[in-house]
Amino acid sequence: MDRHKYILDEKDMPTQWYNIQADLPEPLPPLRHPVTKEPTILPPPLFCDELNKQEFSTERWIDIPEEVQDVYKTWRPTTLHRAHRLEKLLDTPAKIFYKYEGTSQAGSHKPNTAVAQAYYNKQAGVKRIATETGAGQWGSAMAMGCMFFGLELKVYMVKVSYQQKPYRRILMETWGAQCVPSPSTDTQFGNKILAEDPESPGSLGMAISEAVEDAATHDDTRYALGSVLNHVLLHQTVNGLETKKLMEQADIYPDIIVGCIGGGSNAAGMFLPFVKDKIAGTKPDLRIICVEPASCPTVTKGLYAWDYGDVAGMAPIALMYTLGHSFVPPPVHAGGLRYHGMAPIVCHLHKLGFIEATAVGQLGTFEAGVTFARTEGIISAPETNHAIRVTIDEALKCKATGESKNILLAHSGHGHFDMSAYELYLSGKLEDYDYPEEKVKEALKDLPEVPAA
Amino acid sequence: MDRHKYILDEKDMPTQWYNIQADLPEPLPPLRHPVTKEPTILPPPLFCDELNKQEFSTERWIDIPEEVQDVYKTWRPTTLHRAHRLEKLLDTPAKIFYKYEGTSQAGSHKPNTAVAQAYYNKQAGVKRIATETGAGQWGSAMAMGCMFFGLELKVYMVKVSYQQKPYRRILMETWGAQCVPSPSTDTQFGNKILAEDPESPGSLGMAISEAVEDAATHDDTRYALGSVLNHVLLHQTVNGLETKKLMEQADIYPDIIVGCIGGGSNAAGMFLPFVKDKIAGTKPDLRIICVEPASCPTVTKGLYAWDYGDVAGMAPIALMYTLGHSFVPPPVHAGGLRYHGMAPIVCHLHKLGFIEATAVGQLGTFEAGVTFARTEGIISAPETNHAIRVTIDEALKCKATGESKNILLAHSGHGHFDMSAYELYLSGKLEDYDYPEEKVKEALKDLPEVPAA
Repeated sequence: MDRHKYILDEKDMPTQWYNIQADLPEPLPPLRHPVTKEPTILPPPLFCDELNKQEFSTERWIDIPEEVQDVYKTWRPTTLHRAHRLEKLLDTPAKIFYKYEGTSQAGSHKPNTAVAQAYYNKQAGVKRIATETGAGQWGSAMAMGCMFFGLELKVYMVKVSYQQKPYRRILMETWGAQCVPSPSTDTQFGNKILAEDPESPGSLGMAISEAVEDAATHDDTRYALGSVLNHVLLHQTVNGLETKKLMEQADIYPDIIVGCIGGGSNAAGMFLPFVKDKIAGTKPDLRIICVEPASCPTVTKGLYAWDYGDVAGMAPIALMYTLGHSFVPPPVHAGGLRYHGMAPIVCHLHKLGFIEATAVGQLGTFEAGVTFARTEGIISAPETNHAIRVTIDEALKCKATGESKNILLAHSGHGHFDMSAYELYLSGKLEDYDYPEEKVKEALKDLPEVPAA
Repeated sequence: MDRHKYILDEKDMPTQWYNIQADLPEPLPPLRHPVTKEPTILPPPLFCDELNKQEFSTERWIDIPEEVQDVYKTWRPTTLHRAHRLEKLLDTPAKIFYKYEGTSQAGSHKPNTAVAQAYYNKQAGVKRIATETGAGQWGSAMAMGCMFFGLELKVYMVKVSYQQKPYRRILMETWGAQCVPSPSTDTQFGNKILAEDPESPGSLGMAISEAVEDAATHDDTRYALGSVLNHVLLHQTVNGLETKKLMEQADIYPDIIVGCIGGGSNAAGMFLPFVKDKIAGTKPDLRIICVEPASCPTVTKGLYAWDYGDVAGMAPIALMYTLGHSFVPPPVHAGGLRYHGMAPIVCHLHKLGFIEATAVGQLGTFEAGVTFARTEGIISAPETNHAIRVTIDEALKCKATGESKNILLAHSGHGHFDMSAYELYLSGKLEDYDYPEEKVKEALKDLPEVPAA
């Protein structure tokens, strides 16, 4: 039997992140200021200079600071697995590979940027970070990042998740962070929402507004975002670079890359170093499939338009696929992947035709997750299950056609803190939900008008 | 800075387990039959032939079947880490290494034997396994093992844990196993206990009795035990062998090995390949420290005596340290490590003076666990926190003496399913409990009388 695992040695780990902005055939449209609507950088009261520099840099390679590499080495490099048992069950000639990010201490890919963001803020003399979290993956990762560099952290956690997943909060507290349900009484914006609807389940857009207000109103505090922004995707390329090096060592190149998208950082962290080849024209047949929930179908049903990054309209305006900044995922939606917008880089590459997107229903994702658990053993995060669904579907297409494609799954992490969602699925209580076109149309009425640059 | 991680290549993985019985200066006292009190093998209705053979083998090396190696490779080899950040915090000249078993899909070292036991039972034509679990680590591991080889599994889970940790049950169910709280209404023994005390919180000894009865009364079913027995410790040596090879490659030898003990399989899996050198006289100064809870102080307060392996007196009688087979851990006891007895191999080596034992209070273990989480990042299992406590204490002794010892921690797994215990600790609600001498004396009255062999 071929190998089960491919592991880099520490000394072969990437020492630079890859910046796709150096290789885009057309540059990204600049962000706009939420009030003036003019082109803008990330608001300096919210982000430190170095992250701002990275956000707009067109340098192809950006050095990973040694201190960040040192922390990465507490869990990185992560392992590239061959899913022999899943292949056998599916009886497919496809070769399925998965790079597994669940062995980070926080259990997902998110620490790749959390650690970097904590480092740059520490270097800039920042004492405290405010951030939000939806399903909890990002808040946990940032708690871990802030712990490593001795920063205080306050996490605004979408209330419905806060209530469903108490273990996530305890995890953050164990690392020394504070975590409150959002909407909270700790910000003006939170109080405003609660006054209108004391029972509000919260949304990622609301939690972002709270964290942004917290950072804007505390001198010693900066804001941190776990996805969407260019510098976040940049930091995540450490994963794709490791994978590419491992595959090169084994003389393998993927035919298909599959990753789930909420804000886009997991999929992009994997595919950016590969999409480089597609842009260069050396791998024209490479398919990159981004998978989103049918209950939050940003790319497949949303409009490509200028929209705010948050509910309150305090974050910059980006040109992206959006369901409208007032989007609230339906209560049946179990996992993460609940942001109304999408990373501008992911949207741009989709518009340019370099990547595809597809939406899948929740039941099918958990069916795929249980299949994965019962072959490879790993209990995957509900987010990851979206990508597993499409991986399985593509492997079954290979069975039908007899093609032996290399399918590379960007496995974002484990589901140890999401077992209640597995219970809902196993007991038949989980539901599918197709986000209706009408609701999308309605939400899009609130889009800001942005003049030509 | 020195390396952070040491990882074996798949091709260098052990292909044989190490059997300490080949190298014991005095042989193990044989087990006794629970009824006749005569020397006995493991009861054939409970265990398949191959496991029985391994239980009493004195062959030094036992081949790991290829099918088992293939499954091991879905997560093994595991990584040997250098705890640079913990060392720095403690300001110690000691070098702290930890071999981390938390990256197995079930999150602990337990699958090392679960997979092997499932394999041998499958080979023997067994259809179904019955087992027990305390804190849930073993039940999860066996669910994973049975999944890999297509066996049905029923897990009797100590009721107090079943109620405290619903996620453990869902984990087992996701892999396809059935899990019921013990005492249950599914066995005669469970019904008997419930008739006497409907509110019984259960104990590991009771759950063993239920699982043993289940296996004894179903033709297609065998029993599986997750620790204590010789074949279990044998399978766990894959971890110590990997560690020894990694350390040899790096030209390091441990001065101190630290592991937690409940039944003894985690610590022994690590130290057996090293204690071999101590028995041979080549490493006379090697210290091996087994750490147990002050609330379940089997080796430090128990009697070295013949006792039943379970409450009902259906399991064989072993010569071991014991708190008496009717032992029930106090309700404040949060983690695993709750067995009344101890692996005969561990007890024997302790009696012969090759290993040490110490007991630590729960509060100190969680304090150490939080220190570990806030330096190395990993949220450790409550069981592991016992060994971390002593690792830190030994590193601080090195600080006092200026010695640069190599301390090797057998890190048994993560605590992702034990966050409620962390919450108790962080909110100041966790308590220490020293198991009183009087209770030990009382429980020891029930010991069976065993004639000389």
